Amino acid sequence: MTSALLTDKYELTMLAAALHNGTAHRRTTFEVFGRRLPEGRRYGVVAGTARLVEALPEFTFDDAALTLLAEFLDPATLAYLADYRFRGDIDGYPEGELYFPGSPVLSVHGSFGECVILETLALSILNHDSAIASAAARMVSAADGRPLLEMGSRRTHEEAAVACARAAYLAGFAASSNLAAQQRYGVPARGTSAHAFTLLYSTADGPDERAAFAAQVDALGVNTTLLVDTYDITTGVANAIAVAGPELGAVRIDSGELGVLARQVRAQLDDLGATTTRIVVSGDLDEFAIAALRAEPVDTYGVGTSVVTGSGAPTAGMVYKLVEVDGLPVAKRSSRKESHGGRKQAQRLSKRSGTIVEEVVHPDGQAPEAPTGLVARDVAVPLVRNGEVVADLSIAAARERVASGLHSLPWDGLKLSRGEPAIATRMVTHSS
Amino acid sequence: MTSALLTDKYELTMLAAALHNGTAHRRTTFEVFGRRLPEGRRYGVVAGTARLVEALPEFTFDDAALTLLAEFLDPATLAYLADYRFRGDIDGYPEGELYFPGSPVLSVHGSFGECVILETLALSILNHDSAIASAAARMVSAADGRPLLEMGSRRTHEEAAVACARAAYLAGFAASSNLAAQQRYGVPARGTSAHAFTLLYSTADGPDERAAFAAQVDALGVNTTLLVDTYDITTGVANAIAVAGPELGAVRIDSGELGVLARQVRAQLDDLGATTTRIVVSGDLDEFAIAALRAEPVDTYGVGTSVVTGSGAPTAGMVYKLVEVDGLPVAKRSSRKESHGGRKQAQRLSKRSGTIVEEVVHPDGQAPEAPTGLVARDVAVPLVRNGEVVADLSIAAARERVASGLHSLPWDGLKLSRGEPAIATRMVTHSS
Repeated sequence: MTSALLTDKYELTMLAAALHNGTAHRRTTFEVFGRRLPEGRRYGVVAGTARLVEALPEFTFDDAALTLLAEFLDPATLAYLADYRFRGDIDGYPEGELYFPGSPVLSVHGSFGECVILETLALSILNHDSAIASAAARMVSAADGRPLLEMGSRRTHEEAAVACARAAYLAGFAASSNLAAQQRYGVPARGTSAHAFTLLYSTADGPDERAAFAAQVDALGVNTTLLVDTYDITTGVANAIAVAGPELGAVRIDSGELGVLARQVRAQLDDLGATTTRIVVSGDLDEFAIAALRAEPVDTYGVGTSVVTGSGAPTAGMVYKLVEVDGLPVAKRSSRKESHGGRKQAQRLSKRSGTIVEEVVHPDGQAPEAPTGLVARDVAVPLVRNGEVVADLSIAAARERVASGLHSLPWDGLKLSRGEPAIATRMVTHSS
Repeated sequence: MTSALLTDKYELTMLAAALHNGTAHRRTTFEVFGRRLPEGRRYGVVAGTARLVEALPEFTFDDAALTLLAEFLDPATLAYLADYRFRGDIDGYPEGELYFPGSPVLSVHGSFGECVILETLALSILNHDSAIASAAARMVSAADGRPLLEMGSRRTHEEAAVACARAAYLAGFAASSNLAAQQRYGVPARGTSAHAFTLLYSTADGPDERAAFAAQVDALGVNTTLLVDTYDITTGVANAIAVAGPELGAVRIDSGELGVLARQVRAQLDDLGATTTRIVVSGDLDEFAIAALRAEPVDTYGVGTSVVTGSGAPTAGMVYKLVEVDGLPVAKRSSRKESHGGRKQAQRLSKRSGTIVEEVVHPDGQAPEAPTGLVARDVAVPLVRNGEVVADLSIAAARERVASGLHSLPWDGLKLSRGEPAIATRMVTHSS
């Protein structure tokens, strides 16, 4: 099915009106940016760029779509859409880059007609994926090197779940439970068993946890992860080692006060000689709970709801605004929603140590000189030229960008508490 | 593409282990329920049931899926999956029903193997769609009869957006901006223009709002909605009526203090003779902002971010739990996450006035007698028998259920403030 109807109706009625009098052919630049970060957040992580540019070739109007649109569009507009494919240029922040309020995350250049109808698709993908990656990066930072598993598919829309797995992995998670994310994006899939599996081994005589563990070890080997909290955790750990032996890969605890339980279970495992058996914890973890477990003998965190819902910020709140028409800057100017006109670029300034200090958003081609002692880097890259993808969009590269971006933040920027953006954004206006 | 990989890996490793020793063929019931409502909510609205049962026929494993799964599954499990299609039974609350903590929203009956692998798909759809419908119903209630337009596609995942449009419409919204929701589900699509359209009519001499309005009216007729807040709202309204005349359909205000502006604009429109021109307001509206505008001359509300993010509760938090194996109730019993074993049904008790007073969840086939003076109604209906859909799944019927459900709530249940569930749920345990 075409992605072209994943679109707000008004984009097509605007197109019709603009085609009617020829203004649809004016050269324009639309910019995607966030006016602010979600409340209290200190940085955002760009994600979705690759999904967006890869969706462009399928953003075409097939017969079924045109039939639907014929209910409210005139023949000239329908003819335009029948031929439509995006042939313009796109620049933007590559996936994994940090962003801040006002960062020109994406710039779309082309005729008004060809650009205006991409608004919903561009924003849906960037707002969703960036919200997830931004939350996930905070968890990665809080986990301080311990691996994180994304297991929240069941807490979000079934297709959003795949994008969540991708965005969390992009931000530094080790793996996801979602199989479609492995198929589509190569995200490593993990997972072993749920409480239902243990409960299945119940008879009229009552539950039989050992039978469940034996069945799992038989089928999946001793390197599996046994879920030990279906009945009593201490008994569960004893049963797990009795069945699998001290070579058992891991135990998972999914309920209770995880810090206390992790300490108890670690001591018990060690007593049983299972010194290499790892402890996986899960159950309503967010970045704060992850950080609170740093001192505990936890080997791996499983994170569900909080990561797929952006940990309180389920959308990044970016907007898609017309900033230039036929070379002239344009901007809305009614109350509080001002946007800065003109095609823009961004430089990120760092100390020689690598710590970033400021983002400078300037008119395209008018980069100011970097202050003495600071290093300037252009943040955006060419993504699409004449409708064709020209950038390296690998997730591996994006993962490296997140890691180096987190490393580049001033200390305050990594705080989980509410605060201001980690660096200021300076808007340099047109000198002409 | 098959929906069968929209699944957590552990469902398939559990299946493999259970096939290995024959327990995969035990007869089971899995139940979907929420342990609690999102914090402070007084009721939930079930949505997604129809999307789930309609997704079942596509939940099959094609060659590409089996190739991926061959990396970690044995030949017997792969053979089982190659033949897989759900052939069991499903009972559940029809879409649009209210639900409360512990309500058995869905009951899936079949072999362990055929039921366990539906967990992620079932929960993804029900948790997402119910979260949206539950938030949307609060907005419908707050709007007190004025129409609501869902226009949040750009604030959520592009496919989730379509499901959001459907869930909001199901809960009583009048229309959505999303064209795919019209195509797939018949949700009426609405929308006219954005600020970009007005900004497009800028030249070296500056902006030309009248030219933009004239272009839109030329193409779409005087019954269109003109967006009047790109520059100055008072001038915008004057320009709108100057161009379109007093027969103009509507003006939209998308920024500023909407109550004050609505009053000003209403007075100005009336002075200009445009007494039938409607006022549409949008811009960060949620149920509280909608309620706060009740006294103002607002004709239609446009709602974006808040409805597609569940207005603070982006997921319904339902779980999918094994409750019965070969006729025996089973239940997890470690800390705080207790679930009640056994196949269950629910009755809703009402006064003769129609006001509901209690939900009684009882063992299947053991309905207690309704107290004198109260009317009992079974909430769940048969949805699937032997893998085939047997229920009426129309959105029109679901819309009626929401409307009558809201009407049936005790007064406190309609309060927007945080509180307890509107009615209590009584769990009746097995008498045998």
